[in-house]
Amino acid sequence: MGESYQIRLSTDDLPRKWYNILPDLPEPLPPPIGDEQLQRLPELMIGKCLEQEMSQENWIDIPDGVLELYERAGRPRPLFRARALERAIGTPARMYYKSEFYSPTGSHKVNTALAQAYYAKEQGIERLTTETGAGQWGTALSYACAMVGLKCTIYWVRAVYRWKKARRNLMNLFGAQVFASPSPNTKVGKELYDKNPEHPGSLSIAISEGLEDAQDPKAAYSLGSVLNHVLMHQTIIGLETQKQFEKAGDYPDIMISCLGGGSNFGGFVLPFVGEVLKKGKKIKFIAAQSKAAPNLQGEYKYDYADHGEITPQLKMYTLGHQTEFPPIRGDGLRYHGCSPIISLLRKHGYIDTIAYPQDEKYVFEMAELFTRTEGFLPAPESAYSIACAIDEAHRCKKTGEAKVIAFNVSGHGFMDMVGYDEVLGLSDRSPLREMAK
Amino acid sequence: MGESYQIRLSTDDLPRKWYNILPDLPEPLPPPIGDEQLQRLPELMIGKCLEQEMSQENWIDIPDGVLELYERAGRPRPLFRARALERAIGTPARMYYKSEFYSPTGSHKVNTALAQAYYAKEQGIERLTTETGAGQWGTALSYACAMVGLKCTIYWVRAVYRWKKARRNLMNLFGAQVFASPSPNTKVGKELYDKNPEHPGSLSIAISEGLEDAQDPKAAYSLGSVLNHVLMHQTIIGLETQKQFEKAGDYPDIMISCLGGGSNFGGFVLPFVGEVLKKGKKIKFIAAQSKAAPNLQGEYKYDYADHGEITPQLKMYTLGHQTEFPPIRGDGLRYHGCSPIISLLRKHGYIDTIAYPQDEKYVFEMAELFTRTEGFLPAPESAYSIACAIDEAHRCKKTGEAKVIAFNVSGHGFMDMVGYDEVLGLSDRSPLREMAK
Repeated sequence: MGESYQIRLSTDDLPRKWYNILPDLPEPLPPPIGDEQLQRLPELMIGKCLEQEMSQENWIDIPDGVLELYERAGRPRPLFRARALERAIGTPARMYYKSEFYSPTGSHKVNTALAQAYYAKEQGIERLTTETGAGQWGTALSYACAMVGLKCTIYWVRAVYRWKKARRNLMNLFGAQVFASPSPNTKVGKELYDKNPEHPGSLSIAISEGLEDAQDPKAAYSLGSVLNHVLMHQTIIGLETQKQFEKAGDYPDIMISCLGGGSNFGGFVLPFVGEVLKKGKKIKFIAAQSKAAPNLQGEYKYDYADHGEITPQLKMYTLGHQTEFPPIRGDGLRYHGCSPIISLLRKHGYIDTIAYPQDEKYVFEMAELFTRTEGFLPAPESAYSIACAIDEAHRCKKTGEAKVIAFNVSGHGFMDMVGYDEVLGLSDRSPLREMAK
Repeated sequence: MGESYQIRLSTDDLPRKWYNILPDLPEPLPPPIGDEQLQRLPELMIGKCLEQEMSQENWIDIPDGVLELYERAGRPRPLFRARALERAIGTPARMYYKSEFYSPTGSHKVNTALAQAYYAKEQGIERLTTETGAGQWGTALSYACAMVGLKCTIYWVRAVYRWKKARRNLMNLFGAQVFASPSPNTKVGKELYDKNPEHPGSLSIAISEGLEDAQDPKAAYSLGSVLNHVLMHQTIIGLETQKQFEKAGDYPDIMISCLGGGSNFGGFVLPFVGEVLKKGKKIKFIAAQSKAAPNLQGEYKYDYADHGEITPQLKMYTLGHQTEFPPIRGDGLRYHGCSPIISLLRKHGYIDTIAYPQDEKYVFEMAELFTRTEGFLPAPESAYSIACAIDEAHRCKKTGEAKVIAFNVSGHGFMDMVGYDEVLGLSDRSPLREMAK
């Protein structure tokens, strides 16, 4: 065999600690504010997660039970060298991508879902509640609850719940209770539901329902992005990637991932940001976003994480917590604010950003190029990472620089073919139409 | 960390040769018959595949180019220990499953598709044609052609083409030309199409179209199951599994997989059958089938591989090449005949078989148990392997025997949630319905 295409680790190589960047940040992270909201947190959140949220320890032991869950979920995941994509572009760059699409539910979200479900179980909690928008987080939490033996209640924005039937059925298969939100199951939901049982819902309403439901003393509320502990759990991605680059004898010059709330981006890059901050390494980090919700181009200020102002306020780049965003297929990127950690790093100039047009034509075309060359079908959100990586590879082609470009493919697109069809017109590629021309 | 859940190989462990069982069979394999049909083969088939079809060499080198393609497709694939499933059953058995669901197109079919596409490209062929029923094979060949740079034309039974839109779009995304069959693109298709453009089609008609189209001197016809060379390419599954059992310090007493034409079953078990035949190992091999098409319970005789009698006749267990079978969700198991190699082994008593009721309720319920315990969503066909493995584990529970049960999960079910919903009534599990009770 000639050149290698896959850099894989053994299960013994699975990182044993998560990386907590908080003590390494260029300035202390501004704390969340809002007395009333902060007081509510201990009764709503998983104790260990709340503790991790503000920890100043640099390395947090991953419990054996979570390592076991990671192994069962197929970790560590391969890092692929994208040689076929490089050849198609004709770039001197060396391109590598991390395969989070190998996740049992199809996205990186399981990395924190498993940790949270594990801690909740350990604490004696019997049920987790959450909201979901695109559905990736709801699926991941349903899965994690099934793995550790917890009940799971999901409030899913009705407008999305309606048409993502396959994904909803997958949550049902994992044993979750899935409500279209607003639902009659909570006070806040019932008021809206009684007026209009067809109410399309919103992420904000769904969050309110999940939080209300978590007031049940046996339940806790679980979050899938934005918060520090979520990003920390996700560092398993970047920590594996570090070991893989070491094994490959290479090191990234540019690291790219898509960014909605910031959990896959943070999980992928933070361990490398740590090396930039502490070891003087030089890496360009790029967050790929949609022009529909380019939150990193917003204002750096305190803002609520939700429309309904139930959460504490966080210091972050935000487009405003009551802004309405146009629908896109990469729905996971449609959020008004960016995680406080990434926001602070952005403020200090460590994070670049690019926003792609909201018709998504270009990003889906790049996803098609990736699928035809590398063979793996990316999620619509991951298509943004891919488009940005390809842009950088073209830049290298122009300048002749053999840079090393690493990007994260955070999920697969097997349940998103409708989006592919709508944007690329795949159905219209019928050969009968060609024959008729 | 405690017990291990995943036995993985490095890319260096990737087997370098396929195992050809032909010289080890208890009697010579009866040759295909039909002068007229056999004469046509050299112009229709890929030369190297035709050569491998009757090879008496025990080990066939996997070309470096194919090894590279296997690595790009994510091979070797992990063998998982199903500890959570074991605990749920309460069995003393040790259960292991091979993760072919990690395939880029969602099934084991890529293992032979990549080999065939590679040989075709090497031979100077520009285009591969094929038929597809359930769609797994069509997707795999589309993918393989994209990987090596070949054109691909697929004739897909119209009745299935219609409703499996996501899978069709995936083939389009890989750049394949996909015709609903009967199509106006061939003589045999056009005759039927002109009479009725809505003709639902059949596998037999689709095969006829694919074969006719392969008369183009730049094209060849590619087959996804039944034939010897296809099973041999698939032995990559079992050869990896052998290395993994060696690594785990364990060895299977029972090996199980679902069986339609026999390629995933053969690929998984044949290397172990070789050890039974040559090294006196004792393993019980069980083929899991549907009562809708239990071909291993048919007659052992010469029969055509297709309805239209275009292919040579093969000596095999068959239900008759013109039998009509009721539709099931595990559509890949709906075929009248079993591969000649497996059939011969069955005749000599090496292969047991079980057929599950065609309402599929039990097998889908077992797939649900598997999903909730192990976390991976199996394809409907793979649900049969799982049901059979669980049955054997229950048997061990009764007898107290700590047997080792190995089964193959040949594909994932992300594109098959409709089937899950229909059989298990997932949509009816809405909590609002429960509240209304």
